[in-house]
Amino acid sequence: MASKAREPAHPLERLIFFSDAVFAIAITLLVIEIQVPHLPRGAPDIQQVAALANLLPSFVGFFISFWVIGAFWTGHHRAFSLARHYAPGLIVPNLAILCAVAFMPFATAYMSENFGERVPHALYNGVLLATALLNLRLVRKVTDTPYVDEAASAEDVAVTRARGWGVIGGAALAVLMSLVAPLWSQFALITIPLWMTLAIRRAKARLS
Amino acid sequence: MASKAREPAHPLERLIFFSDAVFAIAITLLVIEIQVPHLPRGAPDIQQVAALANLLPSFVGFFISFWVIGAFWTGHHRAFSLARHYAPGLIVPNLAILCAVAFMPFATAYMSENFGERVPHALYNGVLLATALLNLRLVRKVTDTPYVDEAASAEDVAVTRARGWGVIGGAALAVLMSLVAPLWSQFALITIPLWMTLAIRRAKARLS
Amino acid sequence: MASKAREPAHPLERLIFFSDAVFAIAITLLVIEIQVPHLPRGAPDIQQVAALANLLPSFVGFFISFWVIGAFWTGHHRAFSLARHYAPGLIVPNLAILCAVAFMPFATAYMSENFGERVPHALYNGVLLATALLNLRLVRKVTDTPYVDEAASAEDVAVTRARGWGVIGGAALAVLMSLVAPLWSQFALITIPLWMTLAIRRAKARLS
Amino acid sequence: MASKAREPAHPLERLIFFSDAVFAIAITLLVIEIQVPHLPRGAPDIQQVAALANLLPSFVGFFISFWVIGAFWTGHHRAFSLARHYAPGLIVPNLAILCAVAFMPFATAYMSENFGERVPHALYNGVLLATALLNLRLVRKVTDTPYVDEAASAEDVAVTRARGWGVIGGAALAVLMSLVAPLWSQFALITIPLWMTLAIRRAKARLS
Repeated sequence: MASKAREPAHPLERLIFFSDAVFAIAITLLVIEIQVPHLPRGAPDIQQVAALANLLPSFVGFFISFWVIGAFWTGHHRAFSLARHYAPGLIVPNLAILCAVAFMPFATAYMSENFGERVPHALYNGVLLATALLNLRLVRKVTDTPYVDEAASAEDVAVTRARGWGVIGGAALAVLMSLVAPLWSQFALITIPLWMTLAIRRAKARLS
Repeated sequence: MASKAREPAHPLERLIFFSDAVFAIAITLLVIEIQVPHLPRGAPDIQQVAALANLLPSFVGFFISFWVIGAFWTGHHRAFSLARHYAPGLIVPNLAILCAVAFMPFATAYMSENFGERVPHALYNGVLLATALLNLRLVRKVTDTPYVDEAASAEDVAVTRARGWGVIGGAALAVLMSLVAPLWSQFALITIPLWMTLAIRRAKARLS
Repeated sequence: MASKAREPAHPLERLIFFSDAVFAIAITLLVIEIQVPHLPRGAPDIQQVAALANLLPSFVGFFISFWVIGAFWTGHHRAFSLARHYAPGLIVPNLAILCAVAFMPFATAYMSENFGERVPHALYNGVLLATALLNLRLVRKVTDTPYVDEAASAEDVAVTRARGWGVIGGAALAVLMSLVAPLWSQFALITIPLWMTLAIRRAKARLS
Repeated sequence: MASKAREPAHPLERLIFFSDAVFAIAITLLVIEIQVPHLPRGAPDIQQVAALANLLPSFVGFFISFWVIGAFWTGHHRAFSLARHYAPGLIVPNLAILCAVAFMPFATAYMSENFGERVPHALYNGVLLATALLNLRLVRKVTDTPYVDEAASAEDVAVTRARGWGVIGGAALAVLMSLVAPLWSQFALITIPLWMTLAIRRAKARLS
């Protein structure tokens, strides 16, 4: 056996790898929670279309959560691409955000199957806000000593941290809206790029 | 802790890794949607065989989707083996095709449980066509500047892009056929290698 | 962004990676198919134990399939550790064995829920035999030109190929036994190490 | 195709990779076992809250198991970061702990759905204890010849091995408590850091 091949992976790589796997599984499990319609043989097309239309909340939930988890993965990817050193102190804050991400398929399915109700939307948006806060904590930690790559530019660090405010802003607005207009609260997530842009602009202004 | 080991992975590698995990999970989750028959103890063999025969559409759906997702993974693998540089612009088109792939277990189960009906076959083939189009967009992007490896041969790039037309041709034909002959529309996918060969031939002719 | 980091992964590595993910998912999904008993609150301990005892076939199925898939993963790991070159010809035979492995959770659940019946045991052992044959084909291919590492010893190659006969022998015996004594056919798998040892001995004798 | 890129991965890396994937899948599948409440449209908020409150045992089970599997992953990560050589002898003890980890989603769901009953809590804590013992065996093996990195410090090895006693202590106490006070036995897991600290202190005392 080739036991003298190149040296084993950087411990940081394994942490990243494990996190990627959890993100990938959570994002792919979302679809499992959508119940597959089974109609009697020969049911007219219009009934099939109606069965799919009934699932619209589930499709919307799948779509929103796919892109939200995708956004968290993107942030994780950006932040860790600026890191270069490993220390055990990363493990707990990293597991914390993964725990929140792993819970997303439940929150999504609960919202989808009770679409338009106050509690499910509030729970979903609350989980999103909690994930975003855990994400910001991790991003800040990993782009700071002792983890950060000494060669990382101050601007890259500042922008990466600022991006974390995007989902926080959108999710906080969504939580508030879900108390008064549950169904429409999900649209608040459209504002995520807005908060992100504002935060990045402020971060850049501070740097110069 | 060995914090001075070799440098962390290339950001492109992490994107590839995450994508591989999503492909692998989607391809393995297909089987979960097949309902396991549970017969009373001592049921005659013929009833067991009949229960399996009833599941034939599910087995067909599993098999088709396994190889279709496998084909998309192969295309992704080929295209990214020609890339060498990373930029954040890859993330959204890559998540877009993963979103379509993650939806495949639902489309497969819906078609399998309503085999022979127009709407389920049309939906399945439509999802396939959408995935193929998103795939072609990604393959073109990643084999172009700034991502492509400068050492990649023009022919490899042309052939890799041409291959993307295979599923597009087969799925487009299947969508049309599913409107008139749902059950037989799945056979249209057999033409995928044909369109692929034609597209590769044309691409090579253009090069010389 | 660090776009000048070390070069992206070897294409062989990505194929291995994707395969590992499919093996890992299939091996972990096995448990999902076991139905969780839910007894009325305050049910006596003896009823809880009885509910678990009823699941014994499912536990046995989980355990057998976990180690069988583990054995296939081990064979894959061994064979690919002798490979060093990549060519697209590996993709189809590799996807073929992954397709069979991805089907194992269904075959396992079907056998577990109809324990002792002829058809489910025959199907399970048949799937196992098919997987073992696809595995042998892949192992032979990857330990041959153009894939094999030129530095790999002839003995390592011969032994790795010979190991593939272990599951083939055990599964073939189990298929035959499941026709006459379904329940006991699973014990035939205990003979796997025997066939493996015999095949390795013969391979070594041929070499010297 | 770039068949002359850097050499394929170290066989140790592939073993680690496969293990990471199993840990990641088991930790993310936990949520799938939680049944999503589906209430009639327009049900009052208080009923939604009550439905969530009924799921409290499931949330508790998810949370405990997430962090317990996370702790096993952390231990695996630490131990293997001290290893540098590969030999086939690692495969069986590594698969053994993965088998126990893959079983955790079942044990968790069974405990959650029968919360407060003796048998489910005893089973859960028993599985935990078995996993912890298999973990200690693996950690000891991988931090010993021929696997251990010759450059690993004696203290790192001693501390990493000592940490393995944490879950063993907590789980053993929980098994005993589940026989007399099932519901409260889960709190015994809070003592895990205590046993870990004691074991590390003793290990360091022995070294000096």
